[in-house]
Amino acid sequence: MLKMTVAASTPYDILIDRDILGQCCDFIKPLTKAKKILVISDSNVAPLYAKKIVFALEKENFNASLFTFPAGEENKTLQTVYSMLDAMCRFGLTREDLVIAVGGGVTGDMVGFAASIYLRGIDFIQIPTSLLSQVDSSVGGKTGCDLPFGKNLVGAFHNPRLVLIDTATLDTLPSEFFCDGMGEVIKTGAIKDEKLFNCLSAEGSDLSLEKIIYSCVNIKRQVVENDFKESGERRLLNFGHTLGHAIELYYDFKGITHGEAVGVGMLMITKAAEQNGLTKAGTAEKIQCLLKEFNLKTQVDAPLTELLTLCRRDKKSTAEFINLVLLNEIGNAYVHKIPLEELESFFGV
Amino acid sequence: MLKMTVAASTPYDILIDRDILGQCCDFIKPLTKAKKILVISDSNVAPLYAKKIVFALEKENFNASLFTFPAGEENKTLQTVYSMLDAMCRFGLTREDLVIAVGGGVTGDMVGFAASIYLRGIDFIQIPTSLLSQVDSSVGGKTGCDLPFGKNLVGAFHNPRLVLIDTATLDTLPSEFFCDGMGEVIKTGAIKDEKLFNCLSAEGSDLSLEKIIYSCVNIKRQVVENDFKESGERRLLNFGHTLGHAIELYYDFKGITHGEAVGVGMLMITKAAEQNGLTKAGTAEKIQCLLKEFNLKTQVDAPLTELLTLCRRDKKSTAEFINLVLLNEIGNAYVHKIPLEELESFFGV
Repeated sequence: MLKMTVAASTPYDILIDRDILGQCCDFIKPLTKAKKILVISDSNVAPLYAKKIVFALEKENFNASLFTFPAGEENKTLQTVYSMLDAMCRFGLTREDLVIAVGGGVTGDMVGFAASIYLRGIDFIQIPTSLLSQVDSSVGGKTGCDLPFGKNLVGAFHNPRLVLIDTATLDTLPSEFFCDGMGEVIKTGAIKDEKLFNCLSAEGSDLSLEKIIYSCVNIKRQVVENDFKESGERRLLNFGHTLGHAIELYYDFKGITHGEAVGVGMLMITKAAEQNGLTKAGTAEKIQCLLKEFNLKTQVDAPLTELLTLCRRDKKSTAEFINLVLLNEIGNAYVHKIPLEELESFFGV
Repeated sequence: MLKMTVAASTPYDILIDRDILGQCCDFIKPLTKAKKILVISDSNVAPLYAKKIVFALEKENFNASLFTFPAGEENKTLQTVYSMLDAMCRFGLTREDLVIAVGGGVTGDMVGFAASIYLRGIDFIQIPTSLLSQVDSSVGGKTGCDLPFGKNLVGAFHNPRLVLIDTATLDTLPSEFFCDGMGEVIKTGAIKDEKLFNCLSAEGSDLSLEKIIYSCVNIKRQVVENDFKESGERRLLNFGHTLGHAIELYYDFKGITHGEAVGVGMLMITKAAEQNGLTKAGTAEKIQCLLKEFNLKTQVDAPLTELLTLCRRDKKSTAEFINLVLLNEIGNAYVHKIPLEELESFFGV
């Protein structure tokens, strides 16, 4: 089992191994005084894993229950968060009780947010079951949901008490969602770890899935420990995301995954940065090759001007400036702040 | 002008004086880099004060706008918070911008909550215009709204950047709401300040309204500085509130104010505590006299057993115990933890 501890206001462990869900109670019991535990999962993941977890908890004499909500990014709404809060009330969770998120990033983000605002904050545990959530969203304490105006416009910083990553859950993950997760893995290599980036390609060295996940999570851990509230280094994790979010919004979260959108976003901004002499020539080409290897999109037909309009509403923009994350080269990222009115010319439109 | 500074992660000032709203920009400008400021107020208070504040901000070249929501405790819902978030999106507030709550406790609680979750937290300022919010809810960083299952079941800890208390706003406060606020003033004296408690009665010494508010706020300041997240001393502020919340819930927040409900709650629990030999005899009588002086209710016709059932769902109860706040005597409160199953016998039913 691979393990690391995140230094947060309440430190928490991240455990990574194959087939550890069955022993989940061994890790959960020492952390909580909970009598009641509400497991929350979506309609895809609940029958696969969440029911088993509820069963395991009941065997250990927790009063456990399952709440299921409809799967899909389009349900990442305040309405769904409300349905979770309602379930938490009905089950009678107190401040000492616990919530467990079992599923992908949408589930973890919303359950974490519901836990953070229910009674002004109760404990929750992340059991991410998609590659994307295992390498990225389950770690770092960002929780929230979308508003009609854009992605993740509402939320809170709320750290989990434990992150349990069982790589066996990826066996049931449809291949397009595995590739989706690879978008964030490629991003992590691109901003911080050239070795990881290189070993992802077919010609790269062999690295087990557990070790790839460990590398990504470990980088994210370091970044969020240094900058929990995203005033500096954490911004680097947003490489590809400003355009990526705009792409997802343009397509109304349909027909394109988060990883695909981020992949296209990384490529577009790196091409533009090369044009502006701000990134080493050939970097975009390397990203493009790797995206293709994992069947990720390298372009979208959304008009650039419309994407840039959506970017202006990005959380990371202040009234007059926008922070762009660029690469010097693979493995080395930086924040480049430009006036909002220069956004179009940066992209050559 | 009376002034104090609350030692929080970002310290903030509380300013108390008559007729200081006109100079509000003098206090706001040094605190913010905001370009846009959204003033949020309810349909009662907006025409009286919020419009003037928007006008004053515009004069100082802020891009200011007003959002008004329907007045009333029954609108303290997630739906209203959502309407505020929607207005914040539409106005295009960024992370550096600012929200100002102008109104009573319902307004301050919801606006603070909306500010705390919008983009995972932006700055807000409290301009409380009711006695209740001036002496209590505007200070301490508790924000939130109700759920159908109970009061303040959802929320966040989010400190304001400034609290501006203009006692002239109380001139337009209907007298029943002034008395409402006196419920919390009496509570503050009862738990921490015998002198304040005694001077409130007709035979008491003369104290200006500004000084009474200052005394209450100063006690609350000390308590929340020592215990921001309510694990210990802050619980004392809930004297009368466990039953008070149950009473409000029983009447569906109609026909009884918060201060009235807390007043009855203080009296009921103190009578019961005297019966149990846990409070000095005669204490309930003193509270009852003061409640009557301010035209506050001293009893309700809700059946005690039903109120106790509602108490069990209180946030302050854990799975097996409930924390009751009792008085040793006037000016001296403590937490008394009892098993949930002893709740009925404590109250002699």
